Amino acid sequence: MLIIGELINSSRAEIESAIKRKDGEFILKIAQEQIKAGAHYLDVNCATLLEEEPMYLTWLVKTIQEAIPNVSLSLDTPNPKAMEIALSVHSGKAILNSISLEKDRLAGMLPLIKQYKPSVIALCMDDRGLPQTALQEMEIATALVDKITEAGISPDDIYLDPLVRPISTDTKAGLLVLETIRLIKEKLPQVRIICGLSNVSFGLPKRRLLNRAFLIMCMTAGLDAVICDPLDQQLMSLIYSAKALLNQDTNCFTYITMNRLKKLVD
Amino acid sequence: MLIIGELINSSRAEIESAIKRKDGEFILKIAQEQIKAGAHYLDVNCATLLEEEPMYLTWLVKTIQEAIPNVSLSLDTPNPKAMEIALSVHSGKAILNSISLEKDRLAGMLPLIKQYKPSVIALCMDDRGLPQTALQEMEIATALVDKITEAGISPDDIYLDPLVRPISTDTKAGLLVLETIRLIKEKLPQVRIICGLSNVSFGLPKRRLLNRAFLIMCMTAGLDAVICDPLDQQLMSLIYSAKALLNQDTNCFTYITMNRLKKLVD
Repeated sequence: MLIIGELINSSRAEIESAIKRKDGEFILKIAQEQIKAGAHYLDVNCATLLEEEPMYLTWLVKTIQEAIPNVSLSLDTPNPKAMEIALSVHSGKAILNSISLEKDRLAGMLPLIKQYKPSVIALCMDDRGLPQTALQEMEIATALVDKITEAGISPDDIYLDPLVRPISTDTKAGLLVLETIRLIKEKLPQVRIICGLSNVSFGLPKRRLLNRAFLIMCMTAGLDAVICDPLDQQLMSLIYSAKALLNQDTNCFTYITMNRLKKLVD
Repeated sequence: MLIIGELINSSRAEIESAIKRKDGEFILKIAQEQIKAGAHYLDVNCATLLEEEPMYLTWLVKTIQEAIPNVSLSLDTPNPKAMEIALSVHSGKAILNSISLEKDRLAGMLPLIKQYKPSVIALCMDDRGLPQTALQEMEIATALVDKITEAGISPDDIYLDPLVRPISTDTKAGLLVLETIRLIKEKLPQVRIICGLSNVSFGLPKRRLLNRAFLIMCMTAGLDAVICDPLDQQLMSLIYSAKALLNQDTNCFTYITMNRLKKLVD
């Protein structure tokens, strides 16, 4: 289970403010906390900064990687200009987050994928919007995997994102994601599947509770990676539990180790 | 999701002691707490009391039902003598917990099922012991459902229990249960599926964490009922979350209500 920390995102007021004043210390604190809590990658997103996004995204990549040399980043922008400059300064293999089957986005991102060979998060949507059935999701997923492998990316470096929608507006939204994960696992077993969790609980109280339960459900269906808040200790404890229960943790070694390190909370 | 409270069990020292001194007040306190926390049925088990089990089980049924007239009990004993006398004093529809395909148990319990027409928990095991594959579980499940329906019980009053084993001794034990639940749901859609949770975490630290994650997994696979500790507020909160996410809670009404009643903890 690959964990991508979601906290460095300018849609959060304190992060936007820190980015605008180029407060590297604050950003590095959030980065270090997420890594210490178990994140394997860090997502960086400053899309709210509009025209200044390419400059600030570059600053984020440099600031984080200069201080923490071994960390790789998930470069989170729909803007090919911001993506290109961020990829050009990133050391090691980044995650391009994200491409989709929307015509403009595809045209903007595919050349960058060919040139930089990052891992790729691919959103299951096209210019018609979000698919309404698992079969439609699967059609888009298949087309995306074709395009991205043609650009030279190995299937196990592709992370398909079935795009979680809120159950508050469509009570079947959770079931659709689970069905889509199972179908992709069956039809495209080499490709990975990723979800951003938090959309599922939009508009409801006690959102972290729903996010946690939904993550366990998605892992049960076959999820490989998640974009989440690794500082939610309950969530991380449930991830370690789920790995042990799904036979993804030999002899429960990681679970027992995490308990010894006092990282499990119940 | 049917919730059966597991706490009135003489394998817990304080319960055994309360039963032996016939401390009705203590037993009723545990009963009321479980109902208040959301249990639909209460399991009663005093199998550790050996020859005195029939007498104490009868006392438990009478004590609880006289004080709380609307509660139904899950009569939890492998002993047909104890089961018969408990069924004879129980008001309303009890749950017979449990029958299995073991020859003696089957012979002892089937006549009681015919006579009292309770709901029935049926353990997927026979005299060869516990099945090792989902297909073996399914064979036993099918034979059990045949016997129990022949005794006059409707399929939706039968709760098949795939018998959870500890992942500490067999790391595939969790996966076997999930596969069995999916297979039973597919082949015997009218029959219900129940699990006792806590075995899965035997021998490991922070057991409640594993039990919670495993319950969400089983619900995702199709579980209908659970024998658990309803006083674990995190567990109950995750159950309400899972129901909302699985579209088993129209417009998230119960989830939102439970939040208003301050019953959700995160």
